[in-house]
Amino acid sequence: MGKSRDNAAKHLTAPKGFSAAGVASGIKRSGREDLAIIAAERDVPAAVVLTRNQVVGAPIIRTRNILPKGFGKLRAVVVNSGNSNVCTGKRGLRDAESMASLAARELDADPDRVLVASTGIIGHRLPMDRIRDGIPRAAASLGVDNDAAALRAMMTTDLAEKSAVATLRLAGRTVTLGGAVKGSGMIAPSMATMIAVVTTDAPVSPAALHKALTAAAAGTFNAVTVDSDTSTSDTAVLLASGAAGGKRITTRSDDYADFAAALEDLCRELARKLAADGEGATKVIDVHVTGARSDAEAETAAKSVANSPLFKCAMHGCDPNWGRIAMALGKSSATVDQDRLNIRIGGKLIFSRGAGRAFDAAALANYLDRAEVEVSCDLGLGAGSFTAITCDLSREYVAINADYHT
Amino acid sequence: MGKSRDNAAKHLTAPKGFSAAGVASGIKRSGREDLAIIAAERDVPAAVVLTRNQVVGAPIIRTRNILPKGFGKLRAVVVNSGNSNVCTGKRGLRDAESMASLAARELDADPDRVLVASTGIIGHRLPMDRIRDGIPRAAASLGVDNDAAALRAMMTTDLAEKSAVATLRLAGRTVTLGGAVKGSGMIAPSMATMIAVVTTDAPVSPAALHKALTAAAAGTFNAVTVDSDTSTSDTAVLLASGAAGGKRITTRSDDYADFAAALEDLCRELARKLAADGEGATKVIDVHVTGARSDAEAETAAKSVANSPLFKCAMHGCDPNWGRIAMALGKSSATVDQDRLNIRIGGKLIFSRGAGRAFDAAALANYLDRAEVEVSCDLGLGAGSFTAITCDLSREYVAINADYHT
Repeated sequence: MGKSRDNAAKHLTAPKGFSAAGVASGIKRSGREDLAIIAAERDVPAAVVLTRNQVVGAPIIRTRNILPKGFGKLRAVVVNSGNSNVCTGKRGLRDAESMASLAARELDADPDRVLVASTGIIGHRLPMDRIRDGIPRAAASLGVDNDAAALRAMMTTDLAEKSAVATLRLAGRTVTLGGAVKGSGMIAPSMATMIAVVTTDAPVSPAALHKALTAAAAGTFNAVTVDSDTSTSDTAVLLASGAAGGKRITTRSDDYADFAAALEDLCRELARKLAADGEGATKVIDVHVTGARSDAEAETAAKSVANSPLFKCAMHGCDPNWGRIAMALGKSSATVDQDRLNIRIGGKLIFSRGAGRAFDAAALANYLDRAEVEVSCDLGLGAGSFTAITCDLSREYVAINADYHT
Repeated sequence: MGKSRDNAAKHLTAPKGFSAAGVASGIKRSGREDLAIIAAERDVPAAVVLTRNQVVGAPIIRTRNILPKGFGKLRAVVVNSGNSNVCTGKRGLRDAESMASLAARELDADPDRVLVASTGIIGHRLPMDRIRDGIPRAAASLGVDNDAAALRAMMTTDLAEKSAVATLRLAGRTVTLGGAVKGSGMIAPSMATMIAVVTTDAPVSPAALHKALTAAAAGTFNAVTVDSDTSTSDTAVLLASGAAGGKRITTRSDDYADFAAALEDLCRELARKLAADGEGATKVIDVHVTGARSDAEAETAAKSVANSPLFKCAMHGCDPNWGRIAMALGKSSATVDQDRLNIRIGGKLIFSRGAGRAFDAAALANYLDRAEVEVSCDLGLGAGSFTAITCDLSREYVAINADYHT
């Protein structure tokens, strides 16, 4: 796919009723795009899910204030990269407020209807002079055809733009969902682990958006772990323009389940792209746990494997090291009985009844030398299941994070 | 210190009443020492602390059987490296039993008074022919002057032999403690995180040994984390020959507190050597947390920092990155209020009142370029405190663990 095609493709503006823009305001020293606006034509239903980290950035504090229930109405989302506006004190809060006001003025909106999300380095004040210049420029270039620039403006250590588009039929009408996500390091399972913006032209109530987004995040964004480190800025925001028309969808509508399922699929696609673009990653690993005593125990066990540095190094080395998988399951707080445990890599049974099975090591090493691999652990104790999504741990992860300076 | 001096130094045989030996039995392909015996002259009081991992090796299962309360009497400890005898089914249990019987025959002891500990690769049966040959050779070379060979025989990916000796005066008599520990990867805070053997000639009851060892492990072995991965073979064993003479020490003795304190100091020295020899490590990092609502919350917070890959990479890069420290505290389940949090590196205040302070980055980078560094986090919420001991995360950790094959 050529670059011109990429630039022409619609992501967040695929659903009707949204425009987007991305500009280089000078926050990033590289001179790349660093300021994005995603705007609806009017105040539209919206929902957010935020980081569970107790140390949070000024934009998160502000978002909690303007959307205390996690849903309501929004006109626009302003995202900057290069500086997360975290641990910047009261001046940081004023800066986040100013960003919202600047965008609101350009859009003729109420500042409390403008959500701000920032990502990048912690502990530095935003260069407000550059933002004051950038926001009007971004607002002036809002459109439906160049939202690839908005995606680029959300990136920090990301190597790839990450977006997804889905359509579904609801009550005879075609409804579209568009999503974009950024995140590569400090990605771990406590809420949204990144900044994700999802748009839809479906007519959905704020509360229904929030219920659907919270449910979708649990098995998608919250199932991803790059390095077990939870960001202080994680934000997922979902806006519904209603421009597709049709009857409003609430949590009691017949169409709600279809909408929620489509949203979860879209979020899963974005989540997998996060893992694939994990810092230093060479592959995406799905860790399926089944047979746990509960879904919660399955999640604990799956994440213990997905976060194990030894497991992740073995995956990097294409080593079908079931000993480290068994170790990581056993150290978790989920109930594990090694005599009932079955471990499979790529569908091949390699551990059962307390011991390793004979297997073709060369064939499994070959299987593991792929961009997407599957590890399945059946605990044999119940009906609980969960799939964690992770990536391998490489020398490059260390290089990126030892050489990135405060 | 020259090699001859090293070999002459006493470690586990520094306390009176113990002999030790280490031989190359052929378990390790390298031909290095891989089988050690540490023996008392008779059955002596002993205590163990074992891994909390639910997936455990045959030696752990056997140790639970012979010492169901965690203390009793032992004649000897047999340690092999190169193969952990984990996930080897019933045959593995029989192999562990055979190892004990072989040693017991040589020492004229009851097999149930011989503790077996194995470390090394998971999931392969022990080469019992080699062990059958090695144990008599090791028993024949038992002595007080060459226990350096026993230390070498405990090593796997360890780069350095790790031991410590301490003396103290108890009721007018000199009492000695000697300890040796192995462990470099799969080192994390759930019990003993390694194999540690500690000897003493103090006359201590089995129950007092167990109480003192359990208490000492909490702030020492259990405070170490190399990679958050808990081994399936962790074993700490403490034997007391009583050869120093004097009145028997029970948990009610006046001397108990002094003995327990000396044991904890010795275990801390061993624990710090574990972190220093962590796979790929270039430095030891003490993460002090004070001002937590409880000691348990302090431990949770300290370990969240000590296990954060981003923090560990920053330490590797000599980057005083307080943002990652604040992030790791905030993501933990310990209560954290960023406005009351103070963070210091090397005693220098770099974060307070919700924001970074001005500091001399070059001076702090210089401070971090040392073999031992200190990070202190005062949560400002209570009197709870804990110190976690960790090391940095380097490209070499990945290299070691991606290239180590099943």
